[in-house]
Amino acid sequence: AAAGSITTMNPDITRERQHATFDVEKLTHILDGGPEKTRRRREIESMVFSDPDFKEEDPNFLSRSERYDQAVKKSAQMILKLREYGIADPDEIYCYKNCVHPDRPEPLDLHLGMFLPTLLNQATPEQMDRFFMPAWNLEIIGTYAQTEMGHGTHLRGLETTATYDPATQEFVLNSPTISSIKWWPGGLGKTSNHAIVLAQLYTQGNFYGLHAFIVPIRDMDTHIPLPGIVVGDIGPKFGFNEVDNGYLKLENVRIPRDNMLMKYAKVEPDGTYLKPPSAKLTYGTMVFIRSMIVGESARALSKSCTIAIRYSSVRHQSEIRPGDPEPQILDYQAQQYKLFPLLAMAYAFSFVGQYMRRTYNRISGDITQGDFSELPELHALSAGLKAFTTWATNSAIEVCRMSCGGHGYSRSSGLPDIYVEFTPTCTYEGENTVMMLQTARYLLKSYRQAKAGQQLSGIVSYLNEPKHQRVQPQPVAARPTVVDINDLASLVEVYKQRAAILVDLAAKSIEQELQQRKSQEDAWNNSAIDLVRASDAHCHYVVVKLFTDKLVEVGDTAIHSVMSSLALLYALHGITKNSGDFLQAGLLNVPQVLQISARIKELLSQLRPNAVALVDAFDIHDKKLNSVLGRYDGNVYENLFEWARRSPLNSTEVHESFHKYLKPLRSKL
Amino acid sequence: AAAGSITTMNPDITRERQHATFDVEKLTHILDGGPEKTRRRREIESMVFSDPDFKEEDPNFLSRSERYDQAVKKSAQMILKLREYGIADPDEIYCYKNCVHPDRPEPLDLHLGMFLPTLLNQATPEQMDRFFMPAWNLEIIGTYAQTEMGHGTHLRGLETTATYDPATQEFVLNSPTISSIKWWPGGLGKTSNHAIVLAQLYTQGNFYGLHAFIVPIRDMDTHIPLPGIVVGDIGPKFGFNEVDNGYLKLENVRIPRDNMLMKYAKVEPDGTYLKPPSAKLTYGTMVFIRSMIVGESARALSKSCTIAIRYSSVRHQSEIRPGDPEPQILDYQAQQYKLFPLLAMAYAFSFVGQYMRRTYNRISGDITQGDFSELPELHALSAGLKAFTTWATNSAIEVCRMSCGGHGYSRSSGLPDIYVEFTPTCTYEGENTVMMLQTARYLLKSYRQAKAGQQLSGIVSYLNEPKHQRVQPQPVAARPTVVDINDLASLVEVYKQRAAILVDLAAKSIEQELQQRKSQEDAWNNSAIDLVRASDAHCHYVVVKLFTDKLVEVGDTAIHSVMSSLALLYALHGITKNSGDFLQAGLLNVPQVLQISARIKELLSQLRPNAVALVDAFDIHDKKLNSVLGRYDGNVYENLFEWARRSPLNSTEVHESFHKYLKPLRSKL
Repeated sequence: AAAGSITTMNPDITRERQHATFDVEKLTHILDGGPEKTRRRREIESMVFSDPDFKEEDPNFLSRSERYDQAVKKSAQMILKLREYGIADPDEIYCYKNCVHPDRPEPLDLHLGMFLPTLLNQATPEQMDRFFMPAWNLEIIGTYAQTEMGHGTHLRGLETTATYDPATQEFVLNSPTISSIKWWPGGLGKTSNHAIVLAQLYTQGNFYGLHAFIVPIRDMDTHIPLPGIVVGDIGPKFGFNEVDNGYLKLENVRIPRDNMLMKYAKVEPDGTYLKPPSAKLTYGTMVFIRSMIVGESARALSKSCTIAIRYSSVRHQSEIRPGDPEPQILDYQAQQYKLFPLLAMAYAFSFVGQYMRRTYNRISGDITQGDFSELPELHALSAGLKAFTTWATNSAIEVCRMSCGGHGYSRSSGLPDIYVEFTPTCTYEGENTVMMLQTARYLLKSYRQAKAGQQLSGIVSYLNEPKHQRVQPQPVAARPTVVDINDLASLVEVYKQRAAILVDLAAKSIEQELQQRKSQEDAWNNSAIDLVRASDAHCHYVVVKLFTDKLVEVGDTAIHSVMSSLALLYALHGITKNSGDFLQAGLLNVPQVLQISARIKELLSQLRPNAVALVDAFDIHDKKLNSVLGRYDGNVYENLFEWARRSPLNSTEVHESFHKYLKPLRSKL
Repeated sequence: AAAGSITTMNPDITRERQHATFDVEKLTHILDGGPEKTRRRREIESMVFSDPDFKEEDPNFLSRSERYDQAVKKSAQMILKLREYGIADPDEIYCYKNCVHPDRPEPLDLHLGMFLPTLLNQATPEQMDRFFMPAWNLEIIGTYAQTEMGHGTHLRGLETTATYDPATQEFVLNSPTISSIKWWPGGLGKTSNHAIVLAQLYTQGNFYGLHAFIVPIRDMDTHIPLPGIVVGDIGPKFGFNEVDNGYLKLENVRIPRDNMLMKYAKVEPDGTYLKPPSAKLTYGTMVFIRSMIVGESARALSKSCTIAIRYSSVRHQSEIRPGDPEPQILDYQAQQYKLFPLLAMAYAFSFVGQYMRRTYNRISGDITQGDFSELPELHALSAGLKAFTTWATNSAIEVCRMSCGGHGYSRSSGLPDIYVEFTPTCTYEGENTVMMLQTARYLLKSYRQAKAGQQLSGIVSYLNEPKHQRVQPQPVAARPTVVDINDLASLVEVYKQRAAILVDLAAKSIEQELQQRKSQEDAWNNSAIDLVRASDAHCHYVVVKLFTDKLVEVGDTAIHSVMSSLALLYALHGITKNSGDFLQAGLLNVPQVLQISARIKELLSQLRPNAVALVDAFDIHDKKLNSVLGRYDGNVYENLFEWARRSPLNSTEVHESFHKYLKPLRSKL
């Protein structure tokens, strides 16, 4: 396939590939969305990976400042090349960027992904003239400054102020407290000379809430911070070492009136405030980003599985039968049980990502035409699935890393980097617990509508089905179950019923709290555990359902067969991990739970010969995977040694600390 | 208490402390093992923290090479001061070291912790003369080289050879393959001039298995690698940046015959091999280290909880009731549900750590007198508990980090460092899954003995109780349960029964495999999932039991009360997370599971006022905690800003990359 040069292949991995029962290339097309998409993706990848201008030193061998420097250099090259090759489609730009900075965030991310789009969405024509072309040509480099040191998800809590001064027709921006210092925006520390600053607007003595302002922060020519601006890098983080996440303290910074983004809300020269027609438009961006994160979960998980499964096929360790040679560690049931459910999850999330993207595109068409009817459901779904997939992926990456033994801990494995670049998705664009509670709010609202006799549409329509309202609590063995544990449709049904029951339980908890004379708000807070659990079950149901739905689209028999095994493994593994829920609700009985454990073991054996082929189908280029353990050719050890020898600590045979501290120590003891 | 200078305290955290219902200092004494232990620990801490020779730059601001340099410098100082102050007790040395390098591993760890002790245990008197004093005085700096690039846990798989040449009376050491290169030993890359090398012994044409050899690797004077030695650093890792984990390739390296450690096994001048009297002595070291790791789990978890809970008490976010000021995030049920079960776990593991240490000391006394009878049980227990506590702690640290929102992701929070320094415990000193399977082997052996009518002693004696053999599988509601969910003794009993049932299930799985004519070894491998699950349940039972047992020792009523709440929370939370097991076995019924959920919510509210006091009782000095978010005084934001401003990227106002890449880009677009 795309990866690997014509070097000698590791014989273990070659044998694995020979045992595959399906056509890997065809499965790659399904994941890409068609053969043409696969072709074009590979074309872009080869443009970047064969380009000497993008050659880089392994960032793990560089200091923070060198990493930032290398990233800025590559980003500047990238801008030039994108223009040169005329790559303009957002998906293609995204693909190109993810090859230039292999799945690493970079200093211009917010300029390209937030500053320019925000101008497009919220600038007046006059502002477009003044700001857009200079920004397009990188004279203006901008970022988007929303979060503050003391304030994240809760926008009303932001403290930065913009007070209109009609005398000079300027806004005066201030960070009134330490906790109000802007904190976290990517590219703010060192790269940007402008920021879109979110601030609480005051004019004519009145308060009008959060608005966006274009604030010049550095001199366009010298790049030195402007008067009243205290700006810098927030310091080293768990990952994101290429990005200068920054702080910004505003001390009576004056900007012209027409630097407020005024496509919707306006402040007139005399200070009169004109309010915007609708608030729902910004809402769409959040939904878009959260939907994209579902796809990112799938990609991070696919990479991690690729590394862990390929390595497990070439690593030999211990013994199953005494005297036999050491087996591939992929032959251990315990290893399969760690990795194959995650492989199934990677496919599940890939298909959910495709669905979210398609749904977003469909609904955003409606939105452009003023039809917001489907937005609340998509908003609730994207919030919950963002949390569900990122939490699951976050843990899964670490399981993959630890399944590689000691070498997973080496930066050369690629897994530590995948983890640290991925884990912030659990927090940014909406903290996961907050996201789960947002989805719960929608579920509870729908539940109440259903109880009031309203017919629900869309994915929550199961809340209309009456039988769930009598299910809980009930002795586990008292109800006959009709689940066929080998039938996906039947499993989708039990996941659905579990969700319905847990929504019901959460609603009951709130009712009980209210009966104890708690306020609505306290009742909600005192039911948070149940609400998160209900959202989680809802999302789990959606994932099992979408995976099952996807199978209908798969025409190829061999692929259909292996995908069905994966879907079954995903569904059954989820049941064993949450068997209490299913038993408690009487959705399954004890013998079935035992059958499921046995069935899972069968599925592991069944998937074993296809494991390497299934990760090959993700078709992740070696240069993108960036992992000595996950190499397509399986030649792990030679390359691990070669990588280690290049480590900066080996640039001298004797480290200076020997002469400075260790040798002198002898005479003192 | 010990932490905090006389600066202004954050009022939120002061209020928290005023609400505590117990005497924090008394609980600290319980954790330390008595007031005298607390006093001495603080004395040592203050020796180090007030010593200007140990002032350091935040390692997060340094390059890898600078971090290594700073660590070597401090280690050299440490050796001098330990001698100067006459600190010789191993516990006190450990305490001192953990202040000098706040819970970070350091380049001399293996010299002090493995090289010197191995000499003491395995060197002959002649070898002691030649090696011990030079090593004590750091002329010889040594490490312990066991693992190889291709070989970890499975010692028989090691490939390094030592072939005796009677002509010269030397051993010839070789790394015959790439995968046989020694890999991972701490201090091997740059620091050591000697290594104890584990190699397969060949003499007189016969093979005698693994033995230990003292191999000089660098010139004592110039520190340059000796002929035939290829040595270096294995490159950057997830953590352990202060340590030069190294590789060592041996190319026909000759060492004198008497460099083989010959206290037990011997090779005579003519090449005759004399075998050692007993192999059980080295076994004891592993048990010791694994028991120590249980304590390390407790410490890492205590630190993480301290940071997350203190920060949650000063961080305000969002709103519970509209119009009210933003509440402390510790008031959210979802936040309490994340953190309080982990706080309970930190206490549980602290007490388990105390127990393991005490038991090891008792049994090692027996061992010295030739009584090995209790060693197998302790071996099995230390393996399982090492895996159980490190896995749980590993996940818990990340939950703590993510509960701090974005700031948890900053290196200033301390949490990323706690995670990366801790996570290798899941892999080293016995990979966790392998550990769980070792414990399972002991459980299954005991199970078979019990079935054969043998009366078991010690912690597995529950396998004698006959009733478990008929429990499984059985309809869930069919059996009357007698569990009192508010009574710890009763909960210990259900955990015990769960363990017994899961051991039984694993045994049945093996039997079934054998009935299908599988070999004993394949039957074992095909039951690995069940075996790991049984071990996990066994360890869980032991932890609940030891926590409950500890309460008897607590005389203070107020402390007893809050410890009982924690123990109850630990036990009940464990049940809800594994409710399927308990329902499946009919140990609990559905109404009880619902009662447990309600009871957990009550316990969260009950523990809320004591949360900060409970982490204060861990008494972790601010300089050891090393966290802006977890500071004793709660003054988070000022210090976060102050820390960020010191970040190396802020050493210049304008980063050179602006002039190199960004400004020139304008003219090209």
